[in-house]
Amino acid sequence: MSQPPSPAVTPAPPYYAVIFTSIRNEGDQGYADMATRMVELARTQPGFLGVESVRDGLGITVSYWRDLEAIQAWKENAFHREAQARAGDWYARFRVRVCKVEREYGF
Amino acid sequence: MSQPPSPAVTPAPPYYAVIFTSIRNEGDQGYADMATRMVELARTQPGFLGVESVRDGLGITVSYWRDLEAIQAWKENAFHREAQARAGDWYARFRVRVCKVEREYGF
Repeated sequence: MSQPPSPAVTPAPPYYAVIFTSIRNEGDQGYADMATRMVELARTQPGFLGVESVRDGLGITVSYWRDLEAIQAWKENAFHREAQARAGDWYARFRVRVCKVEREYGF
Repeated sequence: MSQPPSPAVTPAPPYYAVIFTSIRNEGDQGYADMATRMVELARTQPGFLGVESVRDGLGITVSYWRDLEAIQAWKENAFHREAQARAGDWYARFRVRVCKVEREYGF
């Protein structure tokens, strides 16, 4: 992923987070290109607020969204659906968790 | 962190997630020991459900909890408070997001 390594800057809660946790399969099978394209595409979607992504064995990508409607629209995006259909090529395991962010703090 | 790299196994939603996103300072200053101890300690807390943690420049640690009371009790844990008080020694930036997990799927 090409974003600078920084926590996402998000508005005051409430908003939504999608926590995508995954273990990759062996080999690339087009994964790196897809991952880059999906982050670029997500950034252009209505209601997208930010993304944080790290992989070191385990991969964790958290994307932030204005509301559930924005998440649903992204899930149904045609290019995203193509990627979802190939999940079995890229991941040995994954979990997707859709969450409502209720509180945020830090420095 | 010493847990095997795998998505956490969590019960059916709803439950809670704490997304901790951070950028480290230069130097260790006791960070590695603290991080290991905090994960070990978190695992023993009532209502703890699991944890996923990756760092590669950006660090993302997601801990999962039964309810907000369990998160509050962990936040107030004496050893955890000592670590929180030293956050400025270890982190250049961090965000903590407390979230209600509403949906989960995957394979």
